[in-house]
Amino acid sequence: MLNRVRSAVAHLVSSGGAPPPRPKSPDLPNAASAPPAAAPEAPRSPPAKAGSGSATPAKAVEIRASFSRPTFLQLSPGGLRRADDHAGRAVQSPPDTGRRLPWSTGYAEVINAGKSRHNEDQACCEVVYVEGRRSVTGAPRELSRGQGLCFYYWGLFDGHAGGGAAEMASRLLHRHIREQLKDLVEILQDPSPPPLCLPTTPGTPDSSDPSHLLGPQSCWSSQKEVTHESLVVGAIENAFQLMDEQMARERRGHQVEGGCCALVVVYLLGKVYVANAGDSRAIIVRNGEIIPMSREFTPETERQRLQLLGFLKPELLGSEFTHLEFPRRVLPKELGQRMLYRDQNMTGWAYKKIELEDLRFPLVCGEGKKARVMATIGVTRGLGDHNLKVCSSTLPIKPFLSCFPEVRVYDLTQYEHCPDDVLVLGTDGLWDVTTDYEVAATVDRVLSAYEPNDHSR
Amino acid sequence: MLNRVRSAVAHLVSSGGAPPPRPKSPDLPNAASAPPAAAPEAPRSPPAKAGSGSATPAKAVEIRASFSRPTFLQLSPGGLRRADDHAGRAVQSPPDTGRRLPWSTGYAEVINAGKSRHNEDQACCEVVYVEGRRSVTGAPRELSRGQGLCFYYWGLFDGHAGGGAAEMASRLLHRHIREQLKDLVEILQDPSPPPLCLPTTPGTPDSSDPSHLLGPQSCWSSQKEVTHESLVVGAIENAFQLMDEQMARERRGHQVEGGCCALVVVYLLGKVYVANAGDSRAIIVRNGEIIPMSREFTPETERQRLQLLGFLKPELLGSEFTHLEFPRRVLPKELGQRMLYRDQNMTGWAYKKIELEDLRFPLVCGEGKKARVMATIGVTRGLGDHNLKVCSSTLPIKPFLSCFPEVRVYDLTQYEHCPDDVLVLGTDGLWDVTTDYEVAATVDRVLSAYEPNDHSR
Repeated sequence: MLNRVRSAVAHLVSSGGAPPPRPKSPDLPNAASAPPAAAPEAPRSPPAKAGSGSATPAKAVEIRASFSRPTFLQLSPGGLRRADDHAGRAVQSPPDTGRRLPWSTGYAEVINAGKSRHNEDQACCEVVYVEGRRSVTGAPRELSRGQGLCFYYWGLFDGHAGGGAAEMASRLLHRHIREQLKDLVEILQDPSPPPLCLPTTPGTPDSSDPSHLLGPQSCWSSQKEVTHESLVVGAIENAFQLMDEQMARERRGHQVEGGCCALVVVYLLGKVYVANAGDSRAIIVRNGEIIPMSREFTPETERQRLQLLGFLKPELLGSEFTHLEFPRRVLPKELGQRMLYRDQNMTGWAYKKIELEDLRFPLVCGEGKKARVMATIGVTRGLGDHNLKVCSSTLPIKPFLSCFPEVRVYDLTQYEHCPDDVLVLGTDGLWDVTTDYEVAATVDRVLSAYEPNDHSR
Repeated sequence: MLNRVRSAVAHLVSSGGAPPPRPKSPDLPNAASAPPAAAPEAPRSPPAKAGSGSATPAKAVEIRASFSRPTFLQLSPGGLRRADDHAGRAVQSPPDTGRRLPWSTGYAEVINAGKSRHNEDQACCEVVYVEGRRSVTGAPRELSRGQGLCFYYWGLFDGHAGGGAAEMASRLLHRHIREQLKDLVEILQDPSPPPLCLPTTPGTPDSSDPSHLLGPQSCWSSQKEVTHESLVVGAIENAFQLMDEQMARERRGHQVEGGCCALVVVYLLGKVYVANAGDSRAIIVRNGEIIPMSREFTPETERQRLQLLGFLKPELLGSEFTHLEFPRRVLPKELGQRMLYRDQNMTGWAYKKIELEDLRFPLVCGEGKKARVMATIGVTRGLGDHNLKVCSSTLPIKPFLSCFPEVRVYDLTQYEHCPDDVLVLGTDGLWDVTTDYEVAATVDRVLSAYEPNDHSR
């Protein structure tokens, strides 16, 4: 968030929307699927990490907190030094070693304008294999047993106030997603509606047979329909929450400083799930048309959620803040006058008589890029930030931040795609200086300069 | 809400979008602007009511609570009896007495399918004159002083559990709006931005001159821009809240039973403001194109707001409800199994192990027209309902209902309009049995059967 320009550009499809073949040995520097049983619940064993670029291998905890760039960049020690050069601001991209990122993924960052010591952002690109738990539904499914699922994964983590959260998220969030999907491997591959209930002990068929539960004892006339798609959305949402909880647990021992916005793309069974918690943005460029795949969560866009929370839980505001919004700070001499304000239920403005409580600092203040929650943070969703306090105060800001993403689904099988169609993920550093249309034009210009089959495209 | 079909059809413009002339003596049966100083704060003096259709004039309190149809229908005692005839289900519309509704307004209702004793719905159509308070801004404005504002007003109130709230809202809500606009009469007619601050004593110019307040002492780099439009939105929002508070105050003395959805249109200074609290719906038909001007607030569309409130204030759920959502009621024998659920932060579904608390009834349950809050009410915004309790319980439902409307603004000066363009307001009784497109087609068919200048159109 605090740096200037970086972007991750990922080709959506070169194959016109057909699901890709399931890779047997993913062509990835970072072997995401190597230890499929290494659950995130075992955080002390660091995951396999090839070519991390860390110059001096050290013990696990230190590796975890040390500065690095995305592993797929395969930076040499020299490249890592250049990445940290505030004066040079080198543009770095993965070397052409023949080990390509999956699905024609491209990545570029302009390193660190110097606002922080290191670039606090991270990115991740993986093909993840999900092995199902044994017969989760309890039904005898000898045929499907052992057939796992594969998802493609891209993550962009815009760090702030320290690089720890972004670094941890880039290593572990896709593992949380995999963990959440484990229960769903059989269910998602079965065209019938998801079962309402799973048995306690996997492998034991019991009374949870869905047809059995639709008896007259139900107080609804029928049970609510739940789609496969909404199960994947739920899995991603819960993975974000579990990632955030893990950061909270480990923040002391493992130096998980700061927080990060998280923008994540999961491609699974023909659908693209774009999950956004923060102010990064994703667009799909399809045949020159721009399809927004996310919206930004800022003090302005989430004003009413924040004010409602402050109104319902005034103890979270201490004696320092008011949940009301004013167009600017109220001055003591304005006591008794009537000033413009907005309450949590209002989208319009009205006048109110200024009372003593209104002299407190507004929970939400400022406009555009200068908008802040509690005069501190300019983004309202993301991971981490468990230690974030109001400046020169002990008041925690975390209760106002949400770790939950908004997930948008794009069904690749519903549209015709051409080789020039792309999915672009960018942090605010990109979108602050350019527009959706400029990005689409740049992509078009660059791609059209190459032969369609050129691997460098 | 509980009846079947009624609609109020209002022509948007016959004049191609130009603001109408300010009427000197409004051509209305109900003299809304007759006592401009009769503020809603003086509820004991009943407002002037012409042709109310009440057969036996009685003292104020009883008139207020007695059954009636919208005053502009000018129903005779016989017409009122027909309106209450469950078997006949007469269609009633205003008689052609030459006293027309403003702006070619049409109105039709099919009276009461018999689900309740009387039709609990009301409608209102007024031209309201707003006299400004004397020199609110404190600046010397001899020229503008005394020049009031005029707004056109249509209200549709879908009552439930008694007709009192709808009846009261149809008589008083536009007066609350007028009261809120009184401070804005000068400001809205002044093209410069609204002042940040108003002086305490009207007519006294003082330190609240806005330019004076933009000094370096401000902690924002600049003050937030507030538009005239957002002041009108704020006035309407606060008017809804004050109407609801008045119902709460007077519910005992004046038999304000039940609640109502409120869908209100204000035309002021070239813009149409559509405020909706409930499940009624407004559309504009422009040149055959349908522009939705509201969205419905139901347990399904407001699930996350309701669940969040239950999560943050569990005392509102008593020991009877859980804020979690399940696809159907959880059965005691399912304790320990894993069932599909949704928490307040989730849009997707996931499985959770059923614990004792999950056996409580879900705060939000059911689907579509059968969705309910606390197993009781199918709409989540509106006025009144202060006495509404969970069935066979003392748990109040009102904390989960919001009286705040969503206000959408349509700038009439921005579009070309033809004489066949209309604004249609309908309760769920209309929209349950028809679609936007069918309504647009019906309007087109009916209007094209008349000569353009025929007053009966």
